[in-house]
Amino acid sequence: MSVDPPRLYSFVGSDAGPWCVERASAIVGAPCAQVSHVSVLADTLPDANATWTLRGIVSNERYVERREKDALAASQQGLGRRDSTSAALIPIRKSAAWWALTQDERRSVFEARSRHIEIGLRYLPAVARRLHHCRDLGPNEPFDFITWFEYAPADAAAFDDLVAALRASPEWAYVEREVDIRLSAAAA
Amino acid sequence: MSVDPPRLYSFVGSDAGPWCVERASAIVGAPCAQVSHVSVLADTLPDANATWTLRGIVSNERYVERREKDALAASQQGLGRRDSTSAALIPIRKSAAWWALTQDERRSVFEARSRHIEIGLRYLPAVARRLHHCRDLGPNEPFDFITWFEYAPADAAAFDDLVAALRASPEWAYVEREVDIRLSAAAA
Repeated sequence: MSVDPPRLYSFVGSDAGPWCVERASAIVGAPCAQVSHVSVLADTLPDANATWTLRGIVSNERYVERREKDALAASQQGLGRRDSTSAALIPIRKSAAWWALTQDERRSVFEARSRHIEIGLRYLPAVARRLHHCRDLGPNEPFDFITWFEYAPADAAAFDDLVAALRASPEWAYVEREVDIRLSAAAA
Repeated sequence: MSVDPPRLYSFVGSDAGPWCVERASAIVGAPCAQVSHVSVLADTLPDANATWTLRGIVSNERYVERREKDALAASQQGLGRRDSTSAALIPIRKSAAWWALTQDERRSVFEARSRHIEIGLRYLPAVARRLHHCRDLGPNEPFDFITWFEYAPADAAAFDDLVAALRASPEWAYVEREVDIRLSAAAA
């Protein structure tokens, strides 16, 4: 019997946890409150000791087409690799103008103009990621997406290049809030 | 100052409310428990008197392209018309196979093969609708979508034709649960 993987994740900022905050930057808009540690928890209840909890749900892909999915699947690796002791938690909110676009218009900005998938492919398999959607969890979510990335410390400069390329793309004109929290695995 | 319209709606089945159940059919899969009335409530808390509550959130369009959105906008009318004293509440769940498709594959089934948008356009402005998404509210929602329709009693046969055309389309091979609840406005 197969068990479906969890879909709902909580990212908990507090003063203890398996990931130590190295630095946290508000790229656009308001920062998150300062914390020293982050935990990533599946299907959990709210934690009374949390400074903040961001929630996101793994959902179907919104833009990826078959040839792109096959290319991604051929190169990507999963989270939890032993050497991936660096991580990044990047929550993003896009503008009302983005959400008012039709599907073909959003796809055009996302890939034809911004090469979002193509840029990401360049950094596989070094950078593993999981995308979580927040916008449809409820009407008052602070972010639309949360992406969790894991990579080896030696790939930190490559990861900086990846996020810089995306932030320079036309798609990012629609990003109205972005926080970038870099983490390292706490000593076992 | 403009106020954003509500996004989160609850559809409450109980023994009182503004919409009387005329009939309820399980088209595919399990029925909903029998109730005599339905209420449609925005941004509300759970109702202890409810037999069941289905929740859905209005979200961005997933398949409609610009030319289609413009055609829809030119013909469609809103909910709440005085003469629209008939309504239908149709919650649907699609299969895991649907959600595993890529965006281009889902669009192909949805419109190129099933003419979902084109079929809907034929019944405008007689049938008004609001689509709500449930799948990303949480990991355990019973349905993926809830659509609420309103029309005049004289258009009931046309509405039957609309749902029959959709149920005969290739897209409906991916529908693994569908309940169809027909309602009439309670006397004022």
